[in-house]
Amino acid sequence: MDLVTYLEKVADEVDTALDREFGGLPGELNKASAHLLLAGGKRLRPAVVMLAADMVKKGRANEIFPAALALELTHTFTLIHDDIMDGDAVRRGVPTVHTVWNEPTGILAGDVLYAHAFKLICTAIADDAAKVRSVTTLANACAELCEGQHMDMSFEVRDDVDEWEYIEMVSKKTGVLYAAAAAIGATLAGCSAQQAQSLHEWGLSSGIAFQIQDDYIDLVADAEKSGKDRASDLRQGKQTLVAILAREKGIDLSGYRRADLTNAEIDEAIALLEEGGVLEEVRSIARTRVERAKSMLSIFPDCDEKDCLMQITDYFVSRGF
Amino acid sequence: MDLVTYLEKVADEVDTALDREFGGLPGELNKASAHLLLAGGKRLRPAVVMLAADMVKKGRANEIFPAALALELTHTFTLIHDDIMDGDAVRRGVPTVHTVWNEPTGILAGDVLYAHAFKLICTAIADDAAKVRSVTTLANACAELCEGQHMDMSFEVRDDVDEWEYIEMVSKKTGVLYAAAAAIGATLAGCSAQQAQSLHEWGLSSGIAFQIQDDYIDLVADAEKSGKDRASDLRQGKQTLVAILAREKGIDLSGYRRADLTNAEIDEAIALLEEGGVLEEVRSIARTRVERAKSMLSIFPDCDEKDCLMQITDYFVSRGF
Repeated sequence: MDLVTYLEKVADEVDTALDREFGGLPGELNKASAHLLLAGGKRLRPAVVMLAADMVKKGRANEIFPAALALELTHTFTLIHDDIMDGDAVRRGVPTVHTVWNEPTGILAGDVLYAHAFKLICTAIADDAAKVRSVTTLANACAELCEGQHMDMSFEVRDDVDEWEYIEMVSKKTGVLYAAAAAIGATLAGCSAQQAQSLHEWGLSSGIAFQIQDDYIDLVADAEKSGKDRASDLRQGKQTLVAILAREKGIDLSGYRRADLTNAEIDEAIALLEEGGVLEEVRSIARTRVERAKSMLSIFPDCDEKDCLMQITDYFVSRGF
Repeated sequence: MDLVTYLEKVADEVDTALDREFGGLPGELNKASAHLLLAGGKRLRPAVVMLAADMVKKGRANEIFPAALALELTHTFTLIHDDIMDGDAVRRGVPTVHTVWNEPTGILAGDVLYAHAFKLICTAIADDAAKVRSVTTLANACAELCEGQHMDMSFEVRDDVDEWEYIEMVSKKTGVLYAAAAAIGATLAGCSAQQAQSLHEWGLSSGIAFQIQDDYIDLVADAEKSGKDRASDLRQGKQTLVAILAREKGIDLSGYRRADLTNAEIDEAIALLEEGGVLEEVRSIARTRVERAKSMLSIFPDCDEKDCLMQITDYFVSRGF
């Protein structure tokens, strides 16, 4: 099974289902709730739900498909609320919900998707006990996502964040939803407690690796390739793992905390960080998380789905944008 | 069983449990989430959950107590988000969450309670099937609460709201959470589908009556008694049932849409509305909802809990503040 083909298939199925459920509903609040949800996206979390389900029992993914949608709704609700908090105007190539409508409607649009996520879990074809465990897993993830976002915002006014706080933040902000996706897919498919725990840990470690790579790419990727302004975190003095390790190694990046950095200055900073061993350490920490994630899958027999989950973890740190 | 004594007992139990679960937790987000939750309140929704449970099977209320807390958390999360949207600075006698902290923290504090509400449903002692149905009921209520708040905000820029739109708005903004409270308490206690449906309808009709009375009190109550500025809805030209019926009867209230109304002018408006039959019609609509609500309880055998639920409905329209 080719991962790219599989992900495209899932994205198509998710797009179709979301469009059927949430497209064309009357009323401004329904339109606002659907706006970002129907703006595309890689739909990675639904794919993880389905891969985990089929890995536990082949054929179960289709039966628990509503739970795959639930994870995408949860992700989208957090994006809508985060965009309000962060004052962001564009997301997935479209204006953010609160800029098209207004902040109150943005808050409510997120709250509506939040509710539907829990409803969708309950409509999966699965044992009631598995649904109850999945609702608890999703609720725990939502509470931790909020903590992650709150930590991330609090880091903006600090310059003393350490590596462990950073890992906790990205674990909550990115890891827990991949963890929930994998655990919920498997739980609804009828897995054991140990299997759910392993998949949860797979998601956490994979998500942490993803976020470390995200910050790494922000620094080293070409602007054209990433589609963002180059090195935006460096310019804003953001407390990324790169910045934290640089500080701990006595490398002073304060001179680069300027909006008007030239390409030459960015290259200079990268060279400084490479020379000081910061970038190698960042890559090493990401690799360690990748290995930990993949080791969690060892309790499952080899199959196409397990292979795809392994590839997703690898992709999280091999992607260049 | 005396209703007032019963409500005081439940409020004490709820206060104690919430303080134990959410009081004194570290971190600003936890403090923000607990702020309004621990600021008191009548705890009517938890009482409804428990009365419905004990009415279905005596002794079940204590076992499903976490669900009673879940309804209070849901109510509180909506208040925190509504206060941001409405720009309100004080609630339950304390500064609102977003004024003590800031709007991002207010959004997240609400989102955290939202998650915990669903977790709490899952920790009740009940059949898994009943928990799944209760999660669905709560999720539906949350989505409708959002719609109700959105309708309420949209009414602010309209002057052509009709009676049915008003009833739909208050049904969603106030009714659905009482409906969910009653249906969830009974469902977790093991009731039939018909019983759950009847209690849901009891809650809807009671909640609608509550909100009609709330608007009525705003107009006719003494300022001292209500603790609010007298006739604030009249001064703001709010689309209450009173204003809607007045317009439909050709009574012009536009001259009273002023911040500086005197007591004499308010009395004049009240006399005009009484004379035109508006106030009697409002009272009659509220009474009809009360009768409908109470009739829904007829399928249950007489017991103390049923009597208390009847009294709650009566209290909703007999209260003077």
